[in-house]
Formats: sequence, structure tokens, C-alpha cells
Amino acid sequence: MKQIRTDLAMESFDGSGGESLPGVQVSHWDVADVRMTEVLITDPDAAQGLGKACGAYLTMECGLLRERAPEARLAVAALLGEELGRMIQPDDSAPVLVVGLGNRFITPDSLGPRAVDRTLVTRHMAECGFASANLRSVCAIAPGVLGITGIETTEMVESLVEKLRPRAILCVDSLAARDSARIGSTIQLSDAGIQPGAGVGNHRRPLTKDSLGVDVVAVGMPTVIYAATLARDAFAVLAARDGSTPSEDALDGMERELFGQEIGEMIVTPREIDAIVEDASAVIASGINRALHPSLSDAEISAMMN
Amino acid sequence: MKQIRTDLAMESFDGSGGESLPGVQVSHWDVADVRMTEVLITDPDAAQGLGKACGAYLTMECGLLRERAPEARLAVAALLGEELGRMIQPDDSAPVLVVGLGNRFITPDSLGPRAVDRTLVTRHMAECGFASANLRSVCAIAPGVLGITGIETTEMVESLVEKLRPRAILCVDSLAARDSARIGSTIQLSDAGIQPGAGVGNHRRPLTKDSLGVDVVAVGMPTVIYAATLARDAFAVLAARDGSTPSEDALDGMERELFGQEIGEMIVTPREIDAIVEDASAVIASGINRALHPSLSDAEISAMMN
Amino acid sequence: MKQIRTDLAMESFDGSGGESLPGVQVSHWDVADVRMTEVLITDPDAAQGLGKACGAYLTMECGLLRERAPEARLAVAALLGEELGRMIQPDDSAPVLVVGLGNRFITPDSLGPRAVDRTLVTRHMAECGFASANLRSVCAIAPGVLGITGIETTEMVESLVEKLRPRAILCVDSLAARDSARIGSTIQLSDAGIQPGAGVGNHRRPLTKDSLGVDVVAVGMPTVIYAATLARDAFAVLAARDGSTPSEDALDGMERELFGQEIGEMIVTPREIDAIVEDASAVIASGINRALHPSLSDAEISAMMN
Amino acid sequence: MKQIRTDLAMESFDGSGGESLPGVQVSHWDVADVRMTEVLITDPDAAQGLGKACGAYLTMECGLLRERAPEARLAVAALLGEELGRMIQPDDSAPVLVVGLGNRFITPDSLGPRAVDRTLVTRHMAECGFASANLRSVCAIAPGVLGITGIETTEMVESLVEKLRPRAILCVDSLAARDSARIGSTIQLSDAGIQPGAGVGNHRRPLTKDSLGVDVVAVGMPTVIYAATLARDAFAVLAARDGSTPSEDALDGMERELFGQEIGEMIVTPREIDAIVEDASAVIASGINRALHPSLSDAEISAMMN
Repeated sequence: MKQIRTDLAMESFDGSGGESLPGVQVSHWDVADVRMTEVLITDPDAAQGLGKACGAYLTMECGLLRERAPEARLAVAALLGEELGRMIQPDDSAPVLVVGLGNRFITPDSLGPRAVDRTLVTRHMAECGFASANLRSVCAIAPGVLGITGIETTEMVESLVEKLRPRAILCVDSLAARDSARIGSTIQLSDAGIQPGAGVGNHRRPLTKDSLGVDVVAVGMPTVIYAATLARDAFAVLAARDGSTPSEDALDGMERELFGQEIGEMIVTPREIDAIVEDASAVIASGINRALHPSLSDAEISAMMN
Repeated sequence: MKQIRTDLAMESFDGSGGESLPGVQVSHWDVADVRMTEVLITDPDAAQGLGKACGAYLTMECGLLRERAPEARLAVAALLGEELGRMIQPDDSAPVLVVGLGNRFITPDSLGPRAVDRTLVTRHMAECGFASANLRSVCAIAPGVLGITGIETTEMVESLVEKLRPRAILCVDSLAARDSARIGSTIQLSDAGIQPGAGVGNHRRPLTKDSLGVDVVAVGMPTVIYAATLARDAFAVLAARDGSTPSEDALDGMERELFGQEIGEMIVTPREIDAIVEDASAVIASGINRALHPSLSDAEISAMMN
Repeated sequence: MKQIRTDLAMESFDGSGGESLPGVQVSHWDVADVRMTEVLITDPDAAQGLGKACGAYLTMECGLLRERAPEARLAVAALLGEELGRMIQPDDSAPVLVVGLGNRFITPDSLGPRAVDRTLVTRHMAECGFASANLRSVCAIAPGVLGITGIETTEMVESLVEKLRPRAILCVDSLAARDSARIGSTIQLSDAGIQPGAGVGNHRRPLTKDSLGVDVVAVGMPTVIYAATLARDAFAVLAARDGSTPSEDALDGMERELFGQEIGEMIVTPREIDAIVEDASAVIASGINRALHPSLSDAEISAMMN
Repeated sequence: MKQIRTDLAMESFDGSGGESLPGVQVSHWDVADVRMTEVLITDPDAAQGLGKACGAYLTMECGLLRERAPEARLAVAALLGEELGRMIQPDDSAPVLVVGLGNRFITPDSLGPRAVDRTLVTRHMAECGFASANLRSVCAIAPGVLGITGIETTEMVESLVEKLRPRAILCVDSLAARDSARIGSTIQLSDAGIQPGAGVGNHRRPLTKDSLGVDVVAVGMPTVIYAATLARDAFAVLAARDGSTPSEDALDGMERELFGQEIGEMIVTPREIDAIVEDASAVIASGINRALHPSLSDAEISAMMN
């Protein structure tokens, strides 16, 4: 269904209904209170069917995160740090470039910029000697969105890649989900980069290894459901009850009736989205800092952040 | 239907389906690009049926407001100033107390505090002589919400009423609507005050002439639709197509399915809600400043606002 | 000297030059990296001479706080919690009212409002039973400043005291210091309340046990030096070198020359004042939360703060 | 004197004491309430003596700006638009790149980023046809500071220059002044670009036509005085009274006495600096928008800014 939009590969897979799909491997495991799901898409046809690029998608779900439990934040940051470290393997030869995607001035789209604000950057300290200080070279930008800069994020990242020659790019982005329970509770990591049309802010062009020539790791958290997706799901629940399937025409008609005169896009968020994004940016930045500076303690990272 | 929640009396009336309802008078007229609707509820039974208190509710709708057209903002501010001036009739004997309801840290609930930030307060200049400066006495507070202060807004306003003896209270609040086109484009004024459960922030106790002993005028703008309301409306569109009416049980079941594990309440907003609330707070504050200081020009008000 | 303004009693005492002053007792001790100084003013003449009210003033100095060392923050929060707990002795009979003084929109004056944002309020949970949950009754407001509300802070607090009958008031305020090393590194506690003219925001009327009828404890941190104070001190350093003392006329002349055409007051702050105030508000709120909810752990307090 | 730092060429000239200096031409004129001063530095020795690069520096002083008078803001924005338009001469062949220098999270250093937020960018609308819409191609970034990104601003701008091939760069920056009356009241334009060590944020490397290969216009407003500069000026006033000149040793000693244990740099600002920067960013952005889109009205620019 064209309007059931989600950036989570696990939701795309669940939505496709299929228990097993050729070219897609799904595995689940638990680490304490965190539910891990890996979706591995190896077949281009399956990728097309799911609306996701080929690659590995790892999801960490932890309901306690949404309840702001301090120990859940620590546990998820530690897990995220481990997994990111495995994917990026930072060394001191070339910097890792962290890119905070999204719009700082739109709360549910501000996860990327806010995570970048909390990322420990070190590239400019190179003259002090990384090796002695146990540091890796890290730099970070929040390039803003097209309507604010007039510059495609891809253009900006491309030009920095040429200048800085990073060993990898780590993109942080706000995601859209289908299931409201996943907002603020779920983190997705992927080696597939950022695809056009993904995220809350709808990027126009890809940020991938193909387009940029370096590894691109994406990490994100759902902060919204599209209102059209919610309405279609409500519609579908009723249809399921009497065994019918609403036609695309019926769904389009319903949307026109509900959102007909709308300028821009309606999104669904929890009321406390500002606190959720603030917390999530801290957890994700903590995971990034642990992954990129594996020999620093949390206290050392915190003390270097001024 | 219990979950179709709206703070707009005109939507309650439209939702009740009745062309004519005893004890309710509805009139429409246009002023340039602004559509005015007055709903006058005089009968307690009609009030109960509509879920609104008895009183006058005036709605100004202007789609251009949402498109941020400067001339639309001016026109609506001027109209609002006139209507508020008529309802409050400020003089220099006793202050008007402007109360910005809602939570400053939750974007769609921050309209009241932000409007108060832009209100010209003058009560503390009394020693300079209001009459000579053509000023009325105005004071303002943004009392915050229960979870932040531990104090009911009503308690705080009651205690200030005893201390300051204002001639009237003017409450500004974020509202919930049913129709997404009304978000950011519609202002409602009412002499019925604030009822429990109204607004985005769900006040527990009323702020009314009955409870406070002074006139209470409420002004607000819709900034959200409740997600449950949207889902029910989507559901209803499909049901209407085959002539059936979903039962309350079916609706409750659908909600459990969509929002089952949710903490807190899901809301629907336009993505650009931050800019909408910022604009709306400026328009509403401009209307308030015009109403409360009728002999000052816009430039004089602006110059006094530091 | 009239323009050497400081809100720290220990600086007033040091500035008075006197090793010993009748009616003033000064003691020093250290707790790990924190230097404690208590100034006890018992004589009204000494109070007048120092420009401070009679009462006890306890100062905690910790240079590491300014360097954002996590362990220093914890240590100071713990010490502050102990001392505040001793002064306030909260129970569950009547609430403690925390008052965040100052202007949220002026960074160095925003310490009070920001500390209140991080204070755990509980008064509205009374129906759940404080005793069983090991909670004390706490409520909190950030009343804003006169130019924004048109209402004296004193009026607002007086009216809330009548309504809520708190057992004590705890005021948090930004302070002015004389020595730049104390900005962001020093916390002062006092049982003398808030005096007119103190703080960065220059209160017009007192908040004291005399004026309000309940105990008033004040806690604050220097965030600024007045530019006039700095200029006078620079002037004095040169004068001291050749043994002369600049006359008041000379000092006034110098001020006119440096600030002659100035609107409003010039203040001196570290460039990173925003981060300093953010950190300080967290440390002070942590101390308050520990003092007012002695049976809750830090993690429990954090989990209840949503 | 090494520590008398100012970014205003007119203050450097005044400070040099010289009525006439070879290689420097100074002219004054008035446009309504705005005092215009042009300092033209053509000789490298004079440039070195003044601590400014060769080039033209145009200063607009308007005390009413600081008093937030609406008509003064309009007048200065119009004048700034004219002068910038003359210097940049935008056309539709290549974009103008607006660069907002400074740190968004340090109030007096946030002028550049905030001005960029209010700049109308159009480069991404090229497909719609600039000519028909009477638009010029404009893009904008706020690259952040080295400690936040790990990337030199110069590196970022260089890489964008290679990618976007702009016809000119327009840098907006917060400045340091010597005279407190100039904070918030004075705008400086220059064709000399940005020099290392200038601005509130102390850039390490230049942004000039020499380093970037395209015209670089700089526009800025003083938001601070360095505390060391203020202290030295206070010192100098006293010395001037008795005809002596303080030695560098004496000045260094005074500084150690006043700021000895200081981490980071102390700055002097008016208390209301947040409002001053907010206003200044609006005035400067309005001037930029007028200069870069000369055929659009203010209302058209405002309507396109969402």
C-alpha cells in the first residue's frame, strides 16, 4: 500500500505479511530488556518489494526508554556503542564524519542536529596527538535542510568528503514508524545509508556508499507516524473486521475527506515529543561517543564536552 | 461519540449534525478574507449535548493565516482586537489579567505562554500615571502546568484575583480541533471561560466567572487533533460508505489495536507546528495589545515591549 | 564604595578589609575539593556596614565545577542537599514552595527558572499518599520579572503563601560577584532570604521571613560581575600601586567616560555563560531534590521527572 | 596596546589617536538618524598599524536601534540593503553564499547563525526559473565553530566554494567593540573579508578573496567588549588624569590580579543582549534580503520565508 510509510525495515517486513521472503533473513534475540531484531536484505527484488535498500538493519527495542528509566538509557547506549563500533571500526588514520540530518527547528525532525550537539569532536585536536590521548579523529556537522540552506545535504556531504577524506560517515536521522509504540523506544542501525524519501524530513537524494565512495552507517529513532498512515491503518482495522479490503480509490477518497485542504504534511507524535527527542539524542550521542572513543570513560567524554 | 474531541464550539455544533438545535443560535458572516461564525448557546441541555458551557463563541477562520501572509496576520489581529475590546472594555481603574495557559516546553501547548511573552504589561508603570500615557493597566502570567509546578492553574489564578482584583481575566490557550484545516487558521473567542478537560493540556478545574468572580474571556487557536479523533474519523468515513455505523465497542477495539501500548496521548499536528505556534502567538498578542491599549499605535506598542 | 556590588556575604566581608568585625563570625573548612565558608552576621550595624541582612551565609567554592567535572557536580549536589535539608527539614504536613527568581530570557539571570524546571514537584500527587511513596510535598514556580508580568514577585509569592500555606520557601537566584573566579564555581545558601537590589535582576521588595511569615532560604550562584564593579576594581589596582585612593568623584568621572551613553546595565560574564548556567541549574536542582526528597535515590528522582 | 581589541576599523583609527594617517582615508556623513563613517585603508603599513586588513570599512551608527525603535530598524535595513547591493551586485548566473559565523549556543556569538535563519534562500528553486520570479540565487549556511564540528570554518567554506561556485560570499559575524555605546547600535560592512582572530569567536584562519578566490563581503555588529579591554580602559582613564602612561607590565599585572584564575575569556555585554542579538539578526537579514532580491517587496520576502 503506497501510503503505509515506515523507515523501519522490521515494520516493512512485518507489513509485507510474509513469514518468509526469499532474499530476506530475520533474526531476533534479547539482551536484558532490549529486544534485538536483525533484518538482512540480500536480494534486490526483495529490497524493492519492501521499499528498502539491500543491507543489514538492526533494531533495538526497549519500552523502558520511553519511560525515561536511567538504567535503560545506559543499557541501550552501551549496546549501541558496541554495535556501532563493530560497524565503523574507527582508527586514528582518518576521521569519522558524523552527520546530523533534519531540521533543528522542527522538534520531531531535530534528533540528528541535537545528537551532533552532544557528539565529542576531536579532529581539530590532531596537533595534540591522538595516540597519546587515546582519541580517534571525529568531526561532525548538522547541515540543515534544503529549505533553510538552498543546498542539498548530499552536495554538502559530498564536498566535505572530498575535503576531509573520512574513513566513514555516520548519519543520525529522525524516522517515521507505523506502530506508535515504537516512537521513542526503538533505535535502528543500518549499513545501507540514507535513501531518498526516508526520514521525517524527506531527503531528495541518497547518502550511500555508492553515491559518496565511503561507508555510510545510518542510525535513527522513530519520532512520528504519518497521519495518512495512521488513518489508513484505522481504516484497515475496520475493513479487516468484515473481511473486505479497501481499494486504493477508497483510501484516496478518505484521505481527501480528512486532509483535503491541508498545506504540508500532518504527523502524529506523543505530546511529550520534545522530551523524547531530547532523551533520544543523549542516548544516541552516548552510543556514538562510546563507539568512536572506545578507550575513554563516560566521565572523560563528559569532561571533554565543553 | 465520546472520543470525537474538539474545543471549537462550531465543530461541536457541526458534529451534532443538527441544522437547528433548540437553545443554539449560529450565524455566519465575512469580513474580507475572514469567515466569522458565532455560536450562541443559551440552553443548558443544548450545552450538555454539545459538551460546551453556555455562552458566546466567536470563530474567525482565515486560511491565509496558515500561509503566513503578512496582510492576513494584520487583518486578523485588527479584527481580534476589536472583538476583544468589545468583550473586555478595559479602563484604568483595575488591571486586566492575561493568563497564558499551557506548557511552554511542549510546542503545540505553548501558544498561551508565548502570547503572554508578547503582551504589553503596564500595571507596574502605574506610578507614572496611566491616564497621561493613554495606557490601561495590564498584567500577565504564564502559570505553567500541574506537573511542572504542583499547583493547579486555578489555585494560582484564584490567589492572584484576590491580590490584584482585576476587572477581567483573559485566558489564552492551545485548542484541539477535529478538522485539520483549522489548525493554525482559526481563532476562537468566548465569554464562557475555560472548562475542565478543554485545551491541549487538559485542565482539571474551570476558570470561569462562576469560579473566579470576575469576567473570564478565552481566546485560543487549534494546534492539534487528537490521534484517537483522527482514527475514529477515518473509521467513520469507511463506515459511512457502506451505510453502517461503527459501535463504540468496535471503535474501542480499533483504538486498542492502534494505540494499545501507548504511554500518554498521541496528537496530530502539521510538521511545521513550531512556526505556526510562533506566528499565532504574535497575531493573538497583537490582537490583545490592540484591545487593551486602544489608543496606542502598533509602533508605540512595539517600542514599549523591551 | 557604593558601586562595589556583590551578593556574596564572604566578598562583602573580604571587601570590608577587616580581619575581625564585631557582630560577624567567619569560619572556613574543607570537604574534599569544596571550600566551605560561613559568614554569620548577628549585629545590625555590621549588617548595614556589609550591605547584607543579619543571618547565616554559607558558601561552597569548587573550581572543578567550572571545568564541568562530573564528580565535582555530584559532590557539590550532595553537600548542597545536606545543608539545605538541615535548613528546611521538609515533612509531609505542608509543602515547600520553590521559587525560581529571574528572567528566563536573559541567560545569566535564568538560573532560578531553569533550576525550577528540574525540580521534582509532588504536591499534586497528595491524593496518592505521600507517606507510602516516601515523598515530601513540593511545589514550584518561576514567577518571571516585573517588566514581563506587571506583577511584583513579592505580590505573587505573598498570594501563593496565603493560598498554599507552605512550611518554607526556597528561592533560587542568579547572583553578582566581585571576583570573576567565583562565577560558575560558588554556591551561596542563606537563611536571610532575598533583599531588595540583590541578584542579577534587582528585586524591588524583600522576600524574607519578616515579609512573608514563613522561613525563606535563598540559594544562588554568581553568574555576572557588574561592569562598573570591574572598572572600579581595575582603577583601584592602579591606585593601589602608587598608594593613592581614587575619590568618588574620580570614579564617577571614569564611569561616565566608559559607560556614558549606556542604556541599561553592562555585565561581565564568561563567554560560555549559557553552558555554565545550564550546569549550575542541574547541580542546584539536584541538591534541592535530594534535600526535599531524602528517601528517594537519584535514579528514582530522575524517573519521576517526566 | 596589544589588549585593546576592537573589530571596528573606525575604533582602531580613533584609538591610534592620529587625526591623519598616511594610507588611510576617513569620511563621515549622515543619512537621517544614521551616522555613516567610511575608513579606507590602502597602505599595508597603515593596515598593520591599525591591525586591520587593507580595504573599505563602512560603519552605520544609529542609537535608536538599541532602543528598538521600529522606524530605525526599517531605515537601517534599507540603508544596509543599498550598500550591500552595491558591493555584491547579485545576478542570476551564480549563487551568493551567505555564511553565518559564530556559535548558535553562545548568545553574543549567535548573530551570524540567527541572521542566516532569517535569510531567504532560493538556490534550490532554480528549476522553477529565477528570471520569471524575479529571484536571485542565494544559499546559506551556519557552519558552527571548531569546538563543535572539529572542522575549520575555512575548510567548510572552501569545500562549498568548489562545489557551488558562488559569485560572492557574504559573511555575518558578531564583533567586539571598545566603546559600550556601539553594542547593538552599529553595523560594519567591509570588502576585506574575515581576518584570523576577529569576531567574538576568534577565527583561526582567514575568509578572504585571497584565500577563497571569490569576493568576500563581511557584515557584523558589536555584541561584546572584552573585559580585559574594559579594564585597561578604566586603568587608562585614571592614568590620563595624572598624566602618566601605564606600562605593559603594570597592565599585565592588573589583569592577573583581576582575572588570574580565569578559564576562558570574560566578556562585557548589556544585560539585555539576547533581545539585542535577536533584533540585530532581523535587521541584518532584512538588509541582506533586500540586497539579494532587489525586486521583491518586504511582504513578498516574508511570505516566502516558510
